[in-house]
Amino acid sequence: MTLAFLTGQILAKKTFLCVGLDPDLDKLPKHLLTESDPVFAFNKTIIDATAPYSVAFKPNLAFYEVLGTKGWVSLEKTIGYLNTNYPNHFTIADAKRGDIGNTSRMYAKTFFDLLDFDSVTVAPYMGKDSVEPFLEFEGKHTILLALTSNDGARDFQLDKGDNLFEKVIETSKKWKNAENMMYVVGATQTAHLKKIRKLIPDSFLLIPGVGAQGGSLEDVCRFGMNKNIGLLVNSSRGIIYQSGGKDFAGKAAEEAQKIQSEMASYLEKFCP
Amino acid sequence: MTLAFLTGQILAKKTFLCVGLDPDLDKLPKHLLTESDPVFAFNKTIIDATAPYSVAFKPNLAFYEVLGTKGWVSLEKTIGYLNTNYPNHFTIADAKRGDIGNTSRMYAKTFFDLLDFDSVTVAPYMGKDSVEPFLEFEGKHTILLALTSNDGARDFQLDKGDNLFEKVIETSKKWKNAENMMYVVGATQTAHLKKIRKLIPDSFLLIPGVGAQGGSLEDVCRFGMNKNIGLLVNSSRGIIYQSGGKDFAGKAAEEAQKIQSEMASYLEKFCP
Repeated sequence: MTLAFLTGQILAKKTFLCVGLDPDLDKLPKHLLTESDPVFAFNKTIIDATAPYSVAFKPNLAFYEVLGTKGWVSLEKTIGYLNTNYPNHFTIADAKRGDIGNTSRMYAKTFFDLLDFDSVTVAPYMGKDSVEPFLEFEGKHTILLALTSNDGARDFQLDKGDNLFEKVIETSKKWKNAENMMYVVGATQTAHLKKIRKLIPDSFLLIPGVGAQGGSLEDVCRFGMNKNIGLLVNSSRGIIYQSGGKDFAGKAAEEAQKIQSEMASYLEKFCP
Repeated sequence: MTLAFLTGQILAKKTFLCVGLDPDLDKLPKHLLTESDPVFAFNKTIIDATAPYSVAFKPNLAFYEVLGTKGWVSLEKTIGYLNTNYPNHFTIADAKRGDIGNTSRMYAKTFFDLLDFDSVTVAPYMGKDSVEPFLEFEGKHTILLALTSNDGARDFQLDKGDNLFEKVIETSKKWKNAENMMYVVGATQTAHLKKIRKLIPDSFLLIPGVGAQGGSLEDVCRFGMNKNIGLLVNSSRGIIYQSGGKDFAGKAAEEAQKIQSEMASYLEKFCP
């Protein structure tokens, strides 16, 4: 998917919501546990319920891997369902991979060729040759961790004086096919969003941390929006686990619609 | 497995070789491709052939994921085979994971509970709360990326003056259950090994990059060995793809034995 198409979807649907698909067997509605594939049954219902209010879906790989082979089957069915039924939604494999070149190439093939995701999240620690194999895929997008939403962001990313996250952004801009690059910036990091927008005025940002992690959507929009909107704001637990009962799809849709209508107002207010 | 047991194995077998299991369908001996599970057939034969000369095995997750569900089945069979038949070998899931706490917890459960690996490689970029969920597993080991063997290590890990890899080592030493921590240091980074040994005199290091990547085993031993030996040196392609024919197991064993006998001489020469 091109970013121009994504911006078009955002403007048409007045939402830049990404719904995180983190299916945890301990939190799934009990009545789904008798299904042959409870995870896929849950995802399919959540996708159908929230698709009108969102432009992207983001399965978090850890929640599938922890179920072993079965989880991998659920993941394949989920991305297959998305690609068949919701081709206008942007898909993100939240995998945070990154390794030496020949290994990163395998990960890139996994997410872009085998599973046909539009994008994958990648960790920058190992540098250029660990990221470029992802960037080589035409029409696909690499979402590099820059400044994450968790407390641990203070350990290395935010270092007094010479911030590592700024160095990651500055350096990665020079890599091959950097136009295919997006960045993860936590919603809890709005103090730094202005500076980040100066460094990468045109790039899309994937913003987790609104909802369960406590970031402010209004501040994210105020400091993060650019002329192409340039934002995908993710919510996972805050939407998909609104209810643990038979009404889980309706409750998830309600919450997604609530966020969508907030987003519509911020699009009007802040879109440059 | 305790590290004392691992050191005992190293001294008894006079080897600190880790064999990397990176099964690439394009490189597997052709006669295996008709097997129902060529990857497991290959791994099983390589494991049997090289076990006498090694103390550890390291499947690289990317090579299994790229095969989708089938690859995950091969991985489960491989670690099951290792745990049943070679319980004295240390096992490493080379996965380079790392995410916010509740997600890292899922990855830790995957590799330590579900698959029962002894250890997993973890990327430090997201800081303390992304690593501690791995450290919470008793009797398991977290292998943190410090200074990797690839060119990209120069982008962020090796920064003029204030090296990031040193900060990662210094900071991570203070984390909860840091005694369960090991570190990845590339064999191509021997110039820094002396300094690393000052920072973490007692920790085990996982050293990739000997062989295909060009690091020197002698220098690794000279600067990296400690009183518990403290080294696991990995070779993947250099051993498992010595031959692409029917003699692949014999050739892999020959190469592993050659490295083992070099290691035996360095154990004598450098063990403090």
